[in-house]
Formats: sequence, C-alpha cells, structure tokens
Amino acid sequence: MTATVRTDLYPTRITGESVPQSRIDPTVWGEALSPLDKEQLDHYESNGYLVLDELLSDEEVQTYLAEVKRLSEDPAVRASERAVLEPDSNQMRSLFEVEKVSELFAELLHSPRLTDIARQVLGSEVYIHQSRVNYKPGFGGAPFHWHSDFETWHSEDGMPQPRAFSLSISLTANFPFNGPLMVIPGSHKLFFPTIGETPPDYHKESLQVASPSVGSPDHRHLTRMADEHGIAQITGDAGSAVMFDSNMLHGSNGNLSPFARSNIFIVYNSVENTLEAPFAAVKPRPQHISNREFPSVSST
Amino acid sequence: MTATVRTDLYPTRITGESVPQSRIDPTVWGEALSPLDKEQLDHYESNGYLVLDELLSDEEVQTYLAEVKRLSEDPAVRASERAVLEPDSNQMRSLFEVEKVSELFAELLHSPRLTDIARQVLGSEVYIHQSRVNYKPGFGGAPFHWHSDFETWHSEDGMPQPRAFSLSISLTANFPFNGPLMVIPGSHKLFFPTIGETPPDYHKESLQVASPSVGSPDHRHLTRMADEHGIAQITGDAGSAVMFDSNMLHGSNGNLSPFARSNIFIVYNSVENTLEAPFAAVKPRPQHISNREFPSVSST
Repeated sequence: MTATVRTDLYPTRITGESVPQSRIDPTVWGEALSPLDKEQLDHYESNGYLVLDELLSDEEVQTYLAEVKRLSEDPAVRASERAVLEPDSNQMRSLFEVEKVSELFAELLHSPRLTDIARQVLGSEVYIHQSRVNYKPGFGGAPFHWHSDFETWHSEDGMPQPRAFSLSISLTANFPFNGPLMVIPGSHKLFFPTIGETPPDYHKESLQVASPSVGSPDHRHLTRMADEHGIAQITGDAGSAVMFDSNMLHGSNGNLSPFARSNIFIVYNSVENTLEAPFAAVKPRPQHISNREFPSVSST
Repeated sequence: MTATVRTDLYPTRITGESVPQSRIDPTVWGEALSPLDKEQLDHYESNGYLVLDELLSDEEVQTYLAEVKRLSEDPAVRASERAVLEPDSNQMRSLFEVEKVSELFAELLHSPRLTDIARQVLGSEVYIHQSRVNYKPGFGGAPFHWHSDFETWHSEDGMPQPRAFSLSISLTANFPFNGPLMVIPGSHKLFFPTIGETPPDYHKESLQVASPSVGSPDHRHLTRMADEHGIAQITGDAGSAVMFDSNMLHGSNGNLSPFARSNIFIVYNSVENTLEAPFAAVKPRPQHISNREFPSVSST
C-alpha cells in the first residue's frame, strides 16, 4: 500500500460557516526554565506573546538600521523577488530571507541569544521558517489586516502544527500612533478557520494589500474576541522585541504619523514541524517566503 | 471711493515654497476665569488643546448614541447633502448641521455648559460655524490627513482670523488603536501655508479621501514639528471631550480595530470673526459645512 491519508488537524480556507476550534497543541513545548524565566514563560503561555525589553543595545540598533538602509538602496536587492515594494511610493516595505543577503543579519538570527529562546519554547532544535525586515514609512504606511500566521503557514505552506513563533525586533520606536503590532491576548488558544479557497499565487496579493480577500477571520469572531480579551498594542523603544505564538490574532493600523517603523522579523519553527504539502493551496509559496531547506539551516 | 483692498494675514494655497509664519492672534481672547480655571486655560493656551473628562454622563451618551443611530438610518437624512457616506461601505461617516436636524443636538450645542466655555475662550458672543456627528467604523475606518482647520476655513470659507475652536465630544471610547484624534501640541502657534490652488468644489474630495491633494502642510514641516513637540493622541472614555484651537495641526489614523468611534463635533466661532469671501477659493463652501447665517444663530 503506497497511498496515505493525511489528517488535517486545523482545516481552514473552507466553505460555509467558520466555527472556532480549540487549539490542540501546547504553546510552550519545552521544559527548560532558561533563558526565559517561569514568569515570562507563563505570560507567553497564557497571553500568546511576550515583550523582551532592550534585546538590542543602542549601538546594535544603529548597526542594523544602517544595514537595512544599505539593503533597501541596493538595486540588486530591490529587483529581487525577496523585496516587496509599497504600491504607491515604491519604497521597500519588506525584504525576505535577510540572513541570505546579509552576513550581519545571518549572525544575529543564528545567535544563541535568539535561538536558545526558540529551543526553549519549541522544545526541540529549530530553524528559520521565514525572516524579513519590515519598513513602514510615515505619512501613510499601509495597515495589515487581522490574521493568524499559522492559518496562512498551515494552508499555504504546509506547516502541520502551531509549533513556531515570530520574533519582531524593533529598530525604531513603536508609538501607539505609528502602526505598531496589535494582538488579541489569548487568541492563540483558538483556531479560526477562514472562509474561501486560496487563489493561485495568492501571496502576491496578500503581502501587498491591507484587506486580503481570504485568510482573515470573520469580523464577528474578531469583535467577540476583542470584546472579551481587549487589544494589546505593543509599544516600546528601538531595541525592544516581542515574540508571539504562530496562531496569535494580530494586525496593525496604518501609519499617518511622520515616524517610520522598522523591524527585524524572524519565524523560528521546530525541526519536528517541518513543512509538508500545503493543506489548502495548490502549490507552496516560494522559498524566500517559506523556507523548505530546513535540514541545512537547522544545523547552523 | 468704493473699492477696498482686503489684507490677508494668513496667505495660503500658494505657489512656491511654504514658509511657516508665527500666529499673529491670541489663542485665548477672553479674560474670565470660569467655567475653565486658570490651569485649564494655560494648558489650552500653550498646547492648543484641552481635555474635558466626563463632559457627558453615561445616560446622556446613551441618549445621543441612540439619536446618531436614528439619524444614520433615516433615508431622508442619508440622502441629504448633509450626509457624507464612506466610499466603500456606504455607512454614514459624517452628518453636518446636526442642530438643524435634531432637537436633542440643538439643545446640547446651544447649552450654556458649552457656549459659556466658547464665550470665555473667544472673548465675545459666539455662534456655530460648523457641526457634525462623525462615525468611524471598525475594520477599516479611513484616516484623516494632517491639517489645520483654520487653514481650510480661511482659504475656502473666508474666516478672517483663528478665533474659533472645535469641541469633539466622544460617544464611544477612544483607544490608542481605533483612530483617535492626534494633535501636535503647540503647533497652533505657527501657520503653515499650503501649496497649490484650491480646486473647484474641493470639499467633495477633501471630506472623503485620506490624503487630499491640497490643504495639508509639507511633510518636512510636519516631521520637524512632531520631532520637536511630539504627538498627543487623545484617548478617553465615552462622554469625555477635547477642545482644540482652529489652527492646531491634527489628523487621525485609520481604524482596523473592531471598535467603532463616534463623536459630536462642534466649531464655535466669535461673532467678531464672521465669514467673508473665501481668501483662496473661487466660491464659498456650502452652508451645511460653513455656516453663513451667523446673525440668527448668534442670538440663540
């Protein structure tokens, strides 16, 4: 017998009615009590996110900002598939796979101060599922609609379980008014199937527009969750960071203030949770958005 | 001799370079120390805005919210020139001249608890230059770009001096993340001429789009002002209010949160500052946006 039937624990991109399901998997997979202490782990487990103040020194922030600027002005980088430009201004909005185009970023993303946290939380060796630097300009930087990353990674990339998290390291100050990350605390414990089939090459739309046509939960679910749990806006100085569970409902407003926002964004995934065929898309998203070279990366 | 030459103390909608000018006029025109006390007046004078907590009781908030809902569902009101609908959803974004369509609002807007403040600050009898209720829906309510109201009222309505202020009374909670008012404290003391001629019937565009083509200061001026003075986001409970000088630089982000925002917005102007011919537009904006019936209104 050669055919196997795969069980989908988190069906999404469905037709009909979206019924929220309980998360089957843990949020914290490891047992260790360092580098994060018990209080930090507990906060992360129950809320789905954790703020890490002063992760980078002021000097490091300046170094990485200069590197972002250098990359954003490099014609070869701008022309590559890794770069996402703002529809209106042509400014670079995101650059993917930063560890492949920058030695500085490669060193940071593979450094034990980050990977030790990832191993602790995910309870295994880890690798980088996705990385990028984001730049949200002032005077109109675009919003990102509410979504769970895991919902996308599961349906479009074939990630089996929510055994991954994002770490967003701020290179600029996050004010309440320049479009910082908003999360709904506790929302990582429910999975909200979304309605509608994934269109072909959908990432080309979903990474550029504020209200993608599929992949966002019902407004009534979002409203109920926000009524029950509130919304936490993650503000803080340059150099601070926030880690959040792959299944966290999050989004961000536009930025009409003059103050741009820039951050380094890394997704660590467990080597026991590597990608399979997409669960709800015709073909996987490209390599630069969704890393499938895990064996080589996990060994670094 | 019949011809007179009018002096324009605040030239704007110009060609060439925008050079900020100092405000010639006072911010507080009266001498009285009530209903606002000295501390409140000083705050208003130096910052250009003042928060008034618990201006309305919870019961009043409920009453006015019900009245807003009633008006927004009234087909005659929706069809009138006074109503501005959201471009995408057709929801009512603003309704002007609320004191003309609602006895409840007429009573509130002419009540001494509001007009006494206006008389105190403007140092004369006052009248309503403009009124509206605003409704900014959740899940994508539109942003308003940075501007000084006086810059518009001067150029398009013919208001001679910045001897007016706005009072925004919240009917819903203002969170940092649902697109509340942002102001640049102290910016009311400078006048920023804007570049470009006022297009004909420009209010039809400027009231609907996030980044109107004229009437907003240079980004470099805005950046410098925000760097120097910061940005204050006005948050607070339903029933709280904020008054701000007509020449204050202000704007608001979009609202991707599920929480709608609704407020009552009133502009009080001094009867010694009534409208003339527009200073930089072919014809005045319509009556419902820019009241020219001041004698009858000032006597209420």
